[in-house]
Amino acid sequence: MPQANKKHVSKYQEFDHKIFPAGTKGVWVNEKSDGRYSLINEEICLPAAVIRESAIKNNLNWMQQFANHHQVRLSPHGKTTMTPALFSEQLEAGAWGITVATPAQAETAAIAGAKHILMANQLVGKANMALIARLMRQHDVQFYACVDSCENAAQLSRFFSEASLTLNVLIEYGVPGGRCGCRNHEEVETLAGFIQAAKGLRLYGLEVYEGVIHGADAEDKIRLFLRDAVMLVEQLTEKKLITVDSPIITGAGSAWYDIVADEFSAHPHLTAIIRPGCYLIHDTGIYQDAQQQVMSRARRNQGYACELGGDLESALELWAYVLSVPEACKAVIGMGKRDVAFDAGLPLVERGFRDGQPLNVQGLEATAIMDQHTFVNVPAGCDLKVGDILVFSTSHPCLTFDKWRYISVADDTDTVTHFVDTRF
Amino acid sequence: MPQANKKHVSKYQEFDHKIFPAGTKGVWVNEKSDGRYSLINEEICLPAAVIRESAIKNNLNWMQQFANHHQVRLSPHGKTTMTPALFSEQLEAGAWGITVATPAQAETAAIAGAKHILMANQLVGKANMALIARLMRQHDVQFYACVDSCENAAQLSRFFSEASLTLNVLIEYGVPGGRCGCRNHEEVETLAGFIQAAKGLRLYGLEVYEGVIHGADAEDKIRLFLRDAVMLVEQLTEKKLITVDSPIITGAGSAWYDIVADEFSAHPHLTAIIRPGCYLIHDTGIYQDAQQQVMSRARRNQGYACELGGDLESALELWAYVLSVPEACKAVIGMGKRDVAFDAGLPLVERGFRDGQPLNVQGLEATAIMDQHTFVNVPAGCDLKVGDILVFSTSHPCLTFDKWRYISVADDTDTVTHFVDTRF
Repeated sequence: MPQANKKHVSKYQEFDHKIFPAGTKGVWVNEKSDGRYSLINEEICLPAAVIRESAIKNNLNWMQQFANHHQVRLSPHGKTTMTPALFSEQLEAGAWGITVATPAQAETAAIAGAKHILMANQLVGKANMALIARLMRQHDVQFYACVDSCENAAQLSRFFSEASLTLNVLIEYGVPGGRCGCRNHEEVETLAGFIQAAKGLRLYGLEVYEGVIHGADAEDKIRLFLRDAVMLVEQLTEKKLITVDSPIITGAGSAWYDIVADEFSAHPHLTAIIRPGCYLIHDTGIYQDAQQQVMSRARRNQGYACELGGDLESALELWAYVLSVPEACKAVIGMGKRDVAFDAGLPLVERGFRDGQPLNVQGLEATAIMDQHTFVNVPAGCDLKVGDILVFSTSHPCLTFDKWRYISVADDTDTVTHFVDTRF
Repeated sequence: MPQANKKHVSKYQEFDHKIFPAGTKGVWVNEKSDGRYSLINEEICLPAAVIRESAIKNNLNWMQQFANHHQVRLSPHGKTTMTPALFSEQLEAGAWGITVATPAQAETAAIAGAKHILMANQLVGKANMALIARLMRQHDVQFYACVDSCENAAQLSRFFSEASLTLNVLIEYGVPGGRCGCRNHEEVETLAGFIQAAKGLRLYGLEVYEGVIHGADAEDKIRLFLRDAVMLVEQLTEKKLITVDSPIITGAGSAWYDIVADEFSAHPHLTAIIRPGCYLIHDTGIYQDAQQQVMSRARRNQGYACELGGDLESALELWAYVLSVPEACKAVIGMGKRDVAFDAGLPLVERGFRDGQPLNVQGLEATAIMDQHTFVNVPAGCDLKVGDILVFSTSHPCLTFDKWRYISVADDTDTVTHFVDTRF
C-alpha cells in the first residue's frame, strides 16, 4: 500500500496576501485586522472565484482513501488548479506525486514540493528540455516524461546525454482515433528497443489515457485496453526492455479512475498510478456527471466508492452582482468569459443574497455569456434587483481556475479566510 | 480635433523580465546577454503567445489616425489585452483614455497612466465602489461609470456622498433585447432627474453599445439608434439635466466604430468617444471579418478607412510544437484551451519551421482542441514530424490574452526583444 509522502516539504513560499498587485480582481480593498472577509456582507470585490475549504478537504480525503484502498498511488493532475498551495495539500494528504501537462507546470509542482512529477505528455523542443534539465538539477525530484515516437526519443537522448543527465520516460500507449500514443504492440516494442539503445534515457513503464475511449460499451473497451497495457508492461519487462524494479503503469482521468484502479490493483508488482485532477474542485456539470457514473458503477459492482461514504462535492463558486435588470425577464450579471468556464455548460445559479440576507433564486437561469457579462433569465414574480449577489456553481473547473490569479478560500459561513495564488 | 495626450506619464513600472516567477510559461530558460531570443531557433519555451511589434505599431497608428480624422476621441477598450505596457503605448499615440469593464481593470488603466478612464459598465457593490473611491483618491484621473437604473444611482449616491466624492456617471442607453441600458427616453429622463437630485453624482452624458444590434439591416438600425442617442443628449442638455460643458456621447466596439465615428463627428459640440478594443491585436477570425465589413463600407461610401491606406494586421501568434504524429493524417500539437482562444473558431496554421528552416504548412488544419492539446489534420504527402514548430493565428484575441501572464514581443525576424505582462 502506498505510503503517505511523509517527507513532503514544500519549497513554495506562501505569498503575502496583504499586498495584491494593483488591478487584482476578486480581492479585498479595505483590510481588516482579523483577516476575515465576509462575502455576504460585500467585503470582497465581485466577481470573485471562491473555493469552500470544507469541500476541498472532503474531496482531498475521499480520493486519497479511494486510492489507498485500491493500493494504487495517486498523482493528481495539476493542470486543473495550477495552485501550489493545493498541490501541497494533496501531497500532505498522501499523494505520491503531481501529474502535469507541460514543463512549466512541472516547475510549479516542484516548488510545491512534489518528489515525483509525472508529465503525462511528450517533452518536445530545446528550451522545454532545458527547463526540465534545470528542474532535475535544482530540485530533489524524480521526473517522468512520456514518449511515443523514435523521433522524440532520439531528440531527448541527444539533449539529456549531452547534459549528462538521465531522463525517466514512460512509453505512451494509445488507441486508434485517440490522442498521442503508440497504436500497437509492435510500435511500443520498437520504441522500447530504441530507448534501451539510446543514451540519457531510462524506460520506467507505460502511460495510457483511457479518457479518449467513448461509446455505449466504453467500460468494456477501457477494461480490455487497460489489460492490454498491463500485458505490454509485463512483456517489456520479460524481454528486459524495462529493467527498473516495479515498473510504472499509469492511467485515469477524472471519469474512469475507478475502473483503472480496479484493473491495476490486480498487479501489486507494478507501481500503479492514477491521475484524476478535477476531483479536488469538482463541479455541478461534466465532472458531476462523470462521478455519478462512478457511483452508479460502484452500486452495481459492490465497489469501494459506495463503502467509502459521502461523495465528491462541488467546491468552487463564482460570486457576482446583478448589474442591471433592463427588462422584466432579463438580468445582466457582472461575470463573463474572463471569469468563468463556459465550454461545458453555463454556470448554475445556486444561491443569492440581498443586504446580507438569503434570496430566493428559484428559476433563475444563465442563458448567455459574453466577455464581461452573463444574461440570466428572470421568471415572473421574481423581484431580482440591481446590487443583488448571485452565487454560481460551474462546469469544467480548469477553465475557471485559469481566469484567476488569486482564489478566495472560504469557510462554511462564506467568510474568506485566505487566498491561494494560481500559476497558469 | 482631439489633442494627443502629451501629459501622459505612466505610473506603470516596467517589470524586470530577468526574473520570471517559477512555472512561468512561454519565456526563456537560458538567459542571453543580448536580450534577444529567436523563436525559430527555439530559444523560448513553447507554447508561447507572441505579438509582432510592427503590427502593433501599425494598428495603433491606423486607429488613432482614423479617430483623429473624424474628430472623435479614442478610448480603446482595455479588456482585450489588460496589458499596461500596451495601454501606455495607446495613450502615447494620442488616446484620450482607456475604457474598462470592471473596477479592477480601471485600476490597471490608472497605473498605466490613463487620465480618463471610462468604465463602460455599471459600478455595483460596496467593495467595488470602495476600489473606485481609492482610485479617485490615489490617481490624478477622471473616472466615469455607467448607470441605467435609479436603484444603482441611489446606491452610488449613498456611497460616494458619504465618501465626500463626486462620481462622474454616464447614462447607458440600450435597445430592447440588448444588454444593459435604459430602454426608452422616459426611463433615461427619469434617471437623469434622479441623478440631478442625488448627492455625490455628476451626469456627464450618454453611453451606448451598438454591438448588440444585429440583422441584415444592422447598419441602418445602428445609425437610427445613434441619432436617437445624440438627440437624447441634446434634450437632456436643453432640460439642464446635463450641465457639464461638452457632454459625452460614447459608443463603438470593434465592429461598427466607422459608423459610430461618422454619426458622432457631425456633433462637434459633444465630446464624442469611440471605444474599439480588439483593433490593437486584431485577428484572422471574427475581427478580421468585422474589419472587412468596415473596409467594404468605406469603399461604398468613400469612407476615410480607404484613404488612410493600409489596414489592421493580425498581431498575435501562438507558437507550438508538434508533440506526436500518432496516425498518418493526425498530428497532436502542444497547445490547448489553457493557451489559445477557441470560442470563435479554432486557430489557423500560418507558418512552420523545422531545424530553423521554413516548412510547408499548406493544408494543415486544426480540427479539435482540448485543455492542453490541439489536433491538426495532416494532408497526404505532408511529412510533418515531432519537433516541428507550427505558428498559428487566432480568432478573438481577448480569450488568448487572458491565458498568459507574459506575452513575447517579437520583431519581424521572429526574435523576441522583450516581454509585456498582463493583468487579468
